[in-house]
Amino acid sequence: MFLERFGSTRIDDQLIARIERITRKPAHHFIRRGIFFSHRELDTILTLKEQGKPFYLYTGRGPSSESLHLGHLIPFIMTKYLQEAFDVPLVIQMSDDEKTIWKDLKVEDAISLAHENAKDIIAMGFNPEKTFIFNDLTFMGQCPAFYQNVIRMQKCVTFNQVKGIFGFVESDLVGKIAFPVVQAAPALSSTFPFIFGNQKVHCLVPCAIDQDPYFRMCRDVAPRLGFPKCALIHSTFFPALQGAKSKMSASDENSAIFLTDKPETIKNKINKYAFSGGRSTVEEHRKYGGVPDIDVAYQLLNFFLEDDDKLKTIHDAYKKGQLLTGEIKKIAIDTVTPIVEWHQAVRKEITDDVLQAYMKIRPLKFEGSS
Amino acid sequence: MFLERFGSTRIDDQLIARIERITRKPAHHFIRRGIFFSHRELDTILTLKEQGKPFYLYTGRGPSSESLHLGHLIPFIMTKYLQEAFDVPLVIQMSDDEKTIWKDLKVEDAISLAHENAKDIIAMGFNPEKTFIFNDLTFMGQCPAFYQNVIRMQKCVTFNQVKGIFGFVESDLVGKIAFPVVQAAPALSSTFPFIFGNQKVHCLVPCAIDQDPYFRMCRDVAPRLGFPKCALIHSTFFPALQGAKSKMSASDENSAIFLTDKPETIKNKINKYAFSGGRSTVEEHRKYGGVPDIDVAYQLLNFFLEDDDKLKTIHDAYKKGQLLTGEIKKIAIDTVTPIVEWHQAVRKEITDDVLQAYMKIRPLKFEGSS
Repeated sequence: MFLERFGSTRIDDQLIARIERITRKPAHHFIRRGIFFSHRELDTILTLKEQGKPFYLYTGRGPSSESLHLGHLIPFIMTKYLQEAFDVPLVIQMSDDEKTIWKDLKVEDAISLAHENAKDIIAMGFNPEKTFIFNDLTFMGQCPAFYQNVIRMQKCVTFNQVKGIFGFVESDLVGKIAFPVVQAAPALSSTFPFIFGNQKVHCLVPCAIDQDPYFRMCRDVAPRLGFPKCALIHSTFFPALQGAKSKMSASDENSAIFLTDKPETIKNKINKYAFSGGRSTVEEHRKYGGVPDIDVAYQLLNFFLEDDDKLKTIHDAYKKGQLLTGEIKKIAIDTVTPIVEWHQAVRKEITDDVLQAYMKIRPLKFEGSS
Repeated sequence: MFLERFGSTRIDDQLIARIERITRKPAHHFIRRGIFFSHRELDTILTLKEQGKPFYLYTGRGPSSESLHLGHLIPFIMTKYLQEAFDVPLVIQMSDDEKTIWKDLKVEDAISLAHENAKDIIAMGFNPEKTFIFNDLTFMGQCPAFYQNVIRMQKCVTFNQVKGIFGFVESDLVGKIAFPVVQAAPALSSTFPFIFGNQKVHCLVPCAIDQDPYFRMCRDVAPRLGFPKCALIHSTFFPALQGAKSKMSASDENSAIFLTDKPETIKNKINKYAFSGGRSTVEEHRKYGGVPDIDVAYQLLNFFLEDDDKLKTIHDAYKKGQLLTGEIKKIAIDTVTPIVEWHQAVRKEITDDVLQAYMKIRPLKFEGSS
């Protein structure tokens, strides 16, 4: 229903096979496991790749908290995979202007959060020669082409349209009404003349499904400005510890595992808060088996355990009641903890100088760049 | 009614006397003749001057046509007088972003009009050491503090507020809704850190009365951001040639005298189009006299003939029927033509290099600057 209503397309086996044919590797398990489950014109992007034509990746983060949580990593893990699989440049928007308005932050504090969050992202290992990170509150004042594209887009969208897309009302702040085009503009390559010159380069946006409205709007506007529509690849929401039906939230400390959590905290959070798909008693569990689909420990493994065979074994054993809740939680803890520890170790090395290297206005290296 | 409803104050003899006491010169005839007729907190600004405290001037121009007409000069003539009388820095906004949206111009064309109009303004003789001219579509991308102040203001104003102030409707472009804070932000001194550092300097805005709503909004927001409210001095509209009740318009070639008009064109326009307050026949005119208040030729003299005694003589002679329509038109032609010719001569010398000198991001010289 959702997909049909908004016109995106489910990622099917044929598309996955095509990705694997082009990259000559298995597609990322996020794609194979349906975590990235839908797209818009990903096939167009694959055709560009086959033809040796350039495209770029665009993703972003609204910096609302000091540290990212595991859920925030999902679009960036996919983005990193796509950057490496297709060898393309990447731009990352830190929308500190958005958070200033929505979260009532001070401009200075939002910029500071953007920088801290950018360091978390850099720690994931993006290639500095192909990655440009910018925060709106600074970059808007460094690159006239950005504001010029914002104005071009503001000329194509009415209040009624953003009201229809985002549910704004008349009592909303002007800043909320103005922001959507600021998120959309980086999907036009001319926002980055220092990277793309005056080439009109296609753009692929990996994002969580809730960001789709911004880019539906962008896809409507781009052709009127002579640009290709951006392509999209959408992820499901990462579950909150309290259950798969909600989303991890940076504002609820116990809803998520943060990248700054200590191993002991991770262990406690999963043991204490991770919603269980197991039965009330060990006897019932042995008899009827657990329900992996609603079990948050299993969901964590589905996201972060890369070994397909091992995941299947765990899934089946849990479903049959051979694996108990405490046991699957332990496996989840043992899977997630080293990822967080590894990130913390790398994050320590991301100095302000490293950050500035990624945020410097400069050309990036990509096929077709000189 | 108008003044009371919107809370501005008429400029009275006492205020004019105070200006003359401080500047030790007669106030500009625009003030003495009621062309600049109302204000907000001009008295506060005069007190600052008396106390030797700094303030700055801010005015602007929406570049919608290749050349300015005489009416466009009015706020700039007042601004130049104020800059010289009070020896203060001046910032001039060319709102090419506004015109891109309202007039459906291309970004590139709006920037080009902004540059051409800025040259017209520079030709009026503003002091390059105390004057900074910027066009939004470029400057927004050169100065992060500008966008940061726009975002701060966007956080303080709702759609309902701009709807109430500017009459926007839901079918209006997002760009229209977003623009008012872009016009308001330069009334906060922190928009120009290269001029004012982090000082919170008072601002005086000379403008036509129709621009007051932008600054009413700004005066509402500024104190919430820790800034003083901007002061204002308002002019009446310059009459169209067709009559004192309308405004000269850049989109109607024959409604206005343009700075590019040749002497022959000026002569023809005034003779042919300038609405006359004279009588139908010479006999009636001699008997009943003309009506200077609705006579456009007389209005032109009221704006541009600086000699008070001469103006009074003309006024009285026209009112008594001693001066005929053709004669007062000739005096108007002889007064306006040399002003336009002088402007054209100076304008020729305003090269791109001169323009860039005014538009360069740099400190300005003012009392209290280092």
